[in-house]
Amino acid sequence: MSYVTHLECARCGKHFNSEEVQQLCECGGPLVVQYDLESVKSNFHKEDLKDREPSLWRYWELLPLKNKKNLVSLGEGMTPMIKMEKAGPDIGLSNLYLKDEGIIPSGTFKSRGATVGVSRAKELGIKTLAMPTNGNAGASWSTYGARAGIKSVIVMPEDAPEITRNECAITGADLYLVDGLISDAGKIVARAVKNYGWFDVSTLKEPYRIEGKKTMGLEIAEQFNWEVPDVILYPTGGGVGIIGIYKALKELQAIGWIGEKMPRLVAVQATGCAPIVKAWQEKKTESEFWNDASTCAFGITVPKALGDFMVLDAIYKTDGCAIAISDDDLLQAQAELAAKEGAFICPEGASLYSAAKQLKKEGWLKEDEKVVLLNTGTGLKYPETVNVKIPVLQPDEDIPKA
Amino acid sequence: MSYVTHLECARCGKHFNSEEVQQLCECGGPLVVQYDLESVKSNFHKEDLKDREPSLWRYWELLPLKNKKNLVSLGEGMTPMIKMEKAGPDIGLSNLYLKDEGIIPSGTFKSRGATVGVSRAKELGIKTLAMPTNGNAGASWSTYGARAGIKSVIVMPEDAPEITRNECAITGADLYLVDGLISDAGKIVARAVKNYGWFDVSTLKEPYRIEGKKTMGLEIAEQFNWEVPDVILYPTGGGVGIIGIYKALKELQAIGWIGEKMPRLVAVQATGCAPIVKAWQEKKTESEFWNDASTCAFGITVPKALGDFMVLDAIYKTDGCAIAISDDDLLQAQAELAAKEGAFICPEGASLYSAAKQLKKEGWLKEDEKVVLLNTGTGLKYPETVNVKIPVLQPDEDIPKA
Repeated sequence: MSYVTHLECARCGKHFNSEEVQQLCECGGPLVVQYDLESVKSNFHKEDLKDREPSLWRYWELLPLKNKKNLVSLGEGMTPMIKMEKAGPDIGLSNLYLKDEGIIPSGTFKSRGATVGVSRAKELGIKTLAMPTNGNAGASWSTYGARAGIKSVIVMPEDAPEITRNECAITGADLYLVDGLISDAGKIVARAVKNYGWFDVSTLKEPYRIEGKKTMGLEIAEQFNWEVPDVILYPTGGGVGIIGIYKALKELQAIGWIGEKMPRLVAVQATGCAPIVKAWQEKKTESEFWNDASTCAFGITVPKALGDFMVLDAIYKTDGCAIAISDDDLLQAQAELAAKEGAFICPEGASLYSAAKQLKKEGWLKEDEKVVLLNTGTGLKYPETVNVKIPVLQPDEDIPKA
Repeated sequence: MSYVTHLECARCGKHFNSEEVQQLCECGGPLVVQYDLESVKSNFHKEDLKDREPSLWRYWELLPLKNKKNLVSLGEGMTPMIKMEKAGPDIGLSNLYLKDEGIIPSGTFKSRGATVGVSRAKELGIKTLAMPTNGNAGASWSTYGARAGIKSVIVMPEDAPEITRNECAITGADLYLVDGLISDAGKIVARAVKNYGWFDVSTLKEPYRIEGKKTMGLEIAEQFNWEVPDVILYPTGGGVGIIGIYKALKELQAIGWIGEKMPRLVAVQATGCAPIVKAWQEKKTESEFWNDASTCAFGITVPKALGDFMVLDAIYKTDGCAIAISDDDLLQAQAELAAKEGAFICPEGASLYSAAKQLKKEGWLKEDEKVVLLNTGTGLKYPETVNVKIPVLQPDEDIPKA
């Protein structure tokens, strides 16, 4: 059983039946899963977690699956929360943490959305799913699709990380590249979905991906023993993570597991594609399409996010902010974190360290605040971001003295 | 505090002081950590684990670190144990499991050895460590070395997985390639260690890597609720994993957490480098140097392992076996596991599925036996093992109907 009551449009509030396959509301708004939180509060207790596996499915009562037999899992979640003992103080922050979503199947937080989204798709009888992707989401959904026995059709830009192609290919997806951006891939998928009747799992076009991403917020709260941190920084493309984390914390408040305090949520983008930052600076509630989007932090190259208004709402409601980082700065941050902490993370995640440095300098972050960098993936999938020049020795040669 | 009493040579039994920096015994044998298991038995209980983090450090009492301040951790361990619901029955095994060591920092089980080895090196005051590697071990030790503030000098074959170079480089190691095999790299490191006084962390030349690898055995036992499986298959290069798992299970017996039953341990190698398999077939207790070693499962290209006699001992004592798999077969197994289960694993790990298939065919494995494939790393680090031919669409083109 599940505690889901219905789906609700995030834009117009219209209700939908969660027992049927749903995509967007007629008004174009994403549908959001609603739970009977009073019943969850009565039946789900923190102590229950002690006996559960360290996967995101430990929060079963706050997830939308009805029957465990439909679970499509590869052991994802409860990713490490690592204190940055050197990298924090170096930028004037004595309580800086990295939540490392590189330590998860496919090496990306996208697998959270995929395990929940694909499980629920299986439960609802979906046979073929289709999506545009900047690489990682496609890899994750192909991976979980393979395990579920669901066919995946994936379209990604030619410039997306090459390793994500391998993942789609080896897990048996039908993969296409597009000579363009994710917005172009999205249009191709939209036409195919209409023509062939496939299930469209584009960002926020199905309701369950948010529920998977939400578990990052649940874990952060649990890992800080139900005292939320002061600030969470998140690299923002489609923004589902920030939407999910905000939803998670509201739900934890509703069931009484955390108090009234909310962390300030910070959306970090690249200067080459910063529609959310621009909207926040202009105090707007929606973003505009960002022309000529380009950054090496490829996962956040999203010129116009469907859920932009939800991201901005979460930022405004939590007194957060939005900030853009240049490619040069984020690549330098990536190298610094690797050398100081052994954390080889993706460029998207590295932008957060640069953002924290800048926000501390501006006084927006205080020295002793608990600050979480939500790194969305492993650096292993971005070998091209590392400069390597390595001497080659013959077997009889010696290593020169340093 | 720790429960370590001393170090003991695995070959001649001589005792060594664990409070001093040690490498090999004078007889050439590796040193193995010994604990006061009676005290561990009195002071450490299964129930203690409930309140501990899901990392390998949960088994603190069976690990060699004395002071938590020396802990060098990136949140490693408690990797998933995934039931192969399709891939198992397809080869006639109804209880086939994959323990997935891809879900760990640096995407390889080598990080287990590194977190324990580097932590203990830090505790003993080491400033520079040096090692030959087939790629992954070097990447892991560089990673943890960076976090510990210890300098790493790494030498790897030119043919080692390229991504491991990036990891060494970005975490600040001094990296050298050698036009040769790991055995050539080993000789270069041995000369440098002698000349410059560095700490040699080659496989089994320091005592603590085994302790890290051992935790795979502890986790397997815990994940099966302290009823060990019937068989564990392990891709064998240096063999530290199989040595560690065997040691773990003996220690769990000694503290009364598991019964007398031992899983049969299986060493899987590639036909292009199978010294342990040859020795086992000839009922020998040591292996011979394998000439012209070559396989795409690069991590197990070890022509002569220092701990070969320990691996063979573990196989004989548990009624296990050793088996070699061709590159063609293991690559096919890799593709099958990815497509059936969404498990994109490294070629070394994939060899296990091929081995299980063959051992079932030969009747060595029974249909209902609990069999664990210990996958040592993620497929993400081996993009060249995947064949990808992908159509490119223009933004106005359509996906053809399947």
